[in-house]
Amino acid sequence: MLQTRLPTPQALKALPGPYLLFLGDITEPGYAKTAFGLRDWAPGHCTGEFGCEGGTVTAGLPRMTPAEAAAQGARSMVIGVANAGGVIPDAWVGPILQAMEAGLDIISGMHVRMGEIERLRDAASLLGRRLIDVREPPRGIQVATGRPRSGKRLLTLGTDCALGKKYTALALTKAFTQRGVDADFRASGQTGILIAGSGIPMDAVVSDFAAGAAEMLSPDAAADHWDVIEGQGSLFHPAYAAVSLALLHGSQPDIVVICHQPGRERVLGHPHFALPSIEETIALALQLGRRTQPAIRCAGVSLNTSHMDEADALRLLATESERLGCAVADPMRGGAAFERLVEDCLA
Amino acid sequence: MLQTRLPTPQALKALPGPYLLFLGDITEPGYAKTAFGLRDWAPGHCTGEFGCEGGTVTAGLPRMTPAEAAAQGARSMVIGVANAGGVIPDAWVGPILQAMEAGLDIISGMHVRMGEIERLRDAASLLGRRLIDVREPPRGIQVATGRPRSGKRLLTLGTDCALGKKYTALALTKAFTQRGVDADFRASGQTGILIAGSGIPMDAVVSDFAAGAAEMLSPDAAADHWDVIEGQGSLFHPAYAAVSLALLHGSQPDIVVICHQPGRERVLGHPHFALPSIEETIALALQLGRRTQPAIRCAGVSLNTSHMDEADALRLLATESERLGCAVADPMRGGAAFERLVEDCLA
Repeated sequence: MLQTRLPTPQALKALPGPYLLFLGDITEPGYAKTAFGLRDWAPGHCTGEFGCEGGTVTAGLPRMTPAEAAAQGARSMVIGVANAGGVIPDAWVGPILQAMEAGLDIISGMHVRMGEIERLRDAASLLGRRLIDVREPPRGIQVATGRPRSGKRLLTLGTDCALGKKYTALALTKAFTQRGVDADFRASGQTGILIAGSGIPMDAVVSDFAAGAAEMLSPDAAADHWDVIEGQGSLFHPAYAAVSLALLHGSQPDIVVICHQPGRERVLGHPHFALPSIEETIALALQLGRRTQPAIRCAGVSLNTSHMDEADALRLLATESERLGCAVADPMRGGAAFERLVEDCLA
Repeated sequence: MLQTRLPTPQALKALPGPYLLFLGDITEPGYAKTAFGLRDWAPGHCTGEFGCEGGTVTAGLPRMTPAEAAAQGARSMVIGVANAGGVIPDAWVGPILQAMEAGLDIISGMHVRMGEIERLRDAASLLGRRLIDVREPPRGIQVATGRPRSGKRLLTLGTDCALGKKYTALALTKAFTQRGVDADFRASGQTGILIAGSGIPMDAVVSDFAAGAAEMLSPDAAADHWDVIEGQGSLFHPAYAAVSLALLHGSQPDIVVICHQPGRERVLGHPHFALPSIEETIALALQLGRRTQPAIRCAGVSLNTSHMDEADALRLLATESERLGCAVADPMRGGAAFERLVEDCLA
């Protein structure tokens, strides 16, 4: 969908689509980010969805078995779930074997490598199917240098995980491109990588090299080129703040856009931790980001209002913009608020 | 030397000492941390030192060939250098082969796994020598939970790399133990791991799990037990800040001790970056540390005055203590200033 100039890992060069999206046995929609992202940003690549017994989450696509998907042209099944720890539970092994038996390759963005699971490895070998792990960082990542790079960079940062950093970056890239601005979406997580066809899974990089990986993700570019970088986690997250900080330091963003979901008050999966405020998140992003990019500024705020009705959402965007003194938009609703956010980014 | 209760990776269970310390071809003493650390904290385990042509750094031990070291009882050669990126340059391969031919196993804390270097792997196999990588994180590291743990924790934090965080943690552990306080040194880097015989190489952990590794490094303990945790990098480091933040969040330290080397004004290896002040480092450590440990406090400052004469050093410790309003000591000099730092830690 979007042009990229990154060296693309071999496995991504010919991802076998279209995909059947696997939703496992999850009951929490927040963990179905990969399935939802592909549905929303690469709909032409999605044949349908498939889940285990006990699962209650749907991406709203036609429900079908792997055999039905294969008959409709699907060439692979994508594990559409991103659970904490990135593991493949035993309950998923049967359905994954079923997909391989139906003729599908398997694409996974989990931390665990599918080849390490004996039953999957043996079946792939026997049936001649490919096990494609997209959360494998490229080789040759160096320690960060901190050297300033040419071109312009935007990084999305969140008050938490799973609330709109990737969608915001994708929507801004599209809006920049529509205005004739040369821009690339830079994927830093498995779903973004599946959508864009390239990127670096930041959370899978060995921590000494994480800021270096972020430098590699947005290389030197033309002076008027924008890299729009998908953020990860949150600087306040009790488990993932380090990933966020490495991405901030290595990206050296000219501007940040802060992403939040109104009403979310606790960290997803860590209910003992209160979410930081938008103002605290802006302040910490600028404070820490200044270390490698002294000119960093916040261009505005992106609110995920997907759970609100239109009138309430528009009212909230207006009052938050007034309160915070900057552009506040929901990129998925577009409209005048989003126009202003795009303009303030490019200003 | 020190008791630990951590699960110990298999490779560490019987590290074959005593060691010949290999100094490579380096000319910058700052990179010989591993050799210096073993000389200072495990002197009984060090037979001598050995280097390549062109190297100018010495640990002050008897210079000898691998054959001479073997004749004096050495059982392995430790790569005593920690360069940026953790690579084994081609120039070191010959001397490492020479050590294996002399009958020594090889111990490395580099990022690169020795078995990935064909000439080393083949020679080890042919000669029956072991290639022991201590920078291999343990298996089964989980994502951090942020759950408070029982027992007390101290973390050393620095204004930069390679200026005394490990020595400070080792000296404080020793002082605590001498006062009858139950304390363990917790190693977070390769040199500390070689000294203590256990620990987790934080910078080699996949970044999504880095805070979880830090949680694992200082597990639940008795209420009056202290874990004294070796810090890594610096929260201001353009390449390694993420490692420092993961260690801070996962350690949940009750107290931090800030480490600095007077006169160092630029980040080691990154001369375009000014060092932060001690005050900035204290402030950021407490600001970020509060996220997982609301009661965090700074117990004092450790200055590495090894390059100063005694009178100047003592004068500086006194004026800095006055200026900063807290205990300021050089643990390697001991004395009343260090007594006060230990007391303020245990207060």
